[in-house]
Amino acid sequence: MKLSARNQLPGTVEAVSPGATTAHVTIKLNGGGTVVASITNEAVADLALKPGDSVFAVIKASDVMVGKG
Amino acid sequence: MKLSARNQLPGTVEAVSPGATTAHVTIKLNGGGTVVASITNEAVADLALKPGDSVFAVIKASDVMVGKG
Amino acid sequence: MKLSARNQLPGTVEAVSPGATTAHVTIKLNGGGTVVASITNEAVADLALKPGDSVFAVIKASDVMVGKG
Amino acid sequence: MKLSARNQLPGTVEAVSPGATTAHVTIKLNGGGTVVASITNEAVADLALKPGDSVFAVIKASDVMVGKG
Amino acid sequence: MKLSARNQLPGTVEAVSPGATTAHVTIKLNGGGTVVASITNEAVADLALKPGDSVFAVIKASDVMVGKG
Amino acid sequence: MKLSARNQLPGTVEAVSPGATTAHVTIKLNGGGTVVASITNEAVADLALKPGDSVFAVIKASDVMVGKG
Repeated sequence: MKLSARNQLPGTVEAVSPGATTAHVTIKLNGGGTVVASITNEAVADLALKPGDSVFAVIKASDVMVGKG
Repeated sequence: MKLSARNQLPGTVEAVSPGATTAHVTIKLNGGGTVVASITNEAVADLALKPGDSVFAVIKASDVMVGKG
Repeated sequence: MKLSARNQLPGTVEAVSPGATTAHVTIKLNGGGTVVASITNEAVADLALKPGDSVFAVIKASDVMVGKG
Repeated sequence: MKLSARNQLPGTVEAVSPGATTAHVTIKLNGGGTVVASITNEAVADLALKPGDSVFAVIKASDVMVGKG
Repeated sequence: MKLSARNQLPGTVEAVSPGATTAHVTIKLNGGGTVVASITNEAVADLALKPGDSVFAVIKASDVMVGKG
Repeated sequence: MKLSARNQLPGTVEAVSPGATTAHVTIKLNGGGTVVASITNEAVADLALKPGDSVFAVIKASDVMVGKG
């Protein structure tokens, strides 16, 4: 499936921290830098996410802000 | 101001495309890769955004999805 | 690519209304009902979206509210 | 109160899974298909959400992506 | 309809700026301060929004960040 | 850092409720009214958020809806 989301950054799962309902997934971007995703525990199970997995951090353009200075 | 948003990726503005009310800002990440932000024209004017500016792409963790495979 | 977003509703594109930078895509869900997506013009071009296309409306669980009464 | 959100899909609560602070609410859409909402425990209590309730899944157009293929 | 969104701030419409597809609505909060909402032109028409209207700025808790210092 | 987000409302932290991974921060706005933010526990620790802190509730314009009537 091709997705309309403009931002799909390749990386590797560094850590998965499940909570009661919400998990945090830390992704080391191939280009450098780290992105944290807050997703449901069900999504983590469904994608069988674990450290070392090759993944994409997917972000809709309307969810990106710009900071300067 | 320090911000709760977990993801603040440094980069350089590559292009600013203003629309009628909404502008698209393309940011080349320092680590490689590109991020597009959809923000208001007012924000572009307020931050005086133009190609070459050093900026951050700021994204709340709950707005990041994970794609795999 | 398998996506963490919990909500992926199948449907058919009914209309595509491009704006200056932002387009509105109306999707008739297979199960009935209609969903409007506000996405970039670039995404519309990239996916070559047009009426009649089979698509999915994709929504992260943290972006869904509940109304009652 | 009439809401600007373009997407208000009628359905029935199928399950409510409270977490430490965040609950997941599964809604069976009247037209078919299922939507999961991630909302605060306080919202679940405030609306007294329980299986069988008639509700709406409410989604802002700018939070809907399109997937194709 | 009662909504799960935790933040519903009362105010008055100060300005409505329609774009090609997306409008900006400026709301003067009753308590002081101003909030800008970026919504579809269709929503503006549907709610017949105009300066002077009593409205609520409605925001999901997961869309609020915190800045400090 | 100056931020593109159009809405930055000053207030005081009233309560911080940590969950397993996600915390709720209640902010009393200077102008009156209360805003709840759902952010990561890591962000709470990173900003050392506690009751009495002067903060801003930061909200992107595209995440604000309008309710009327």
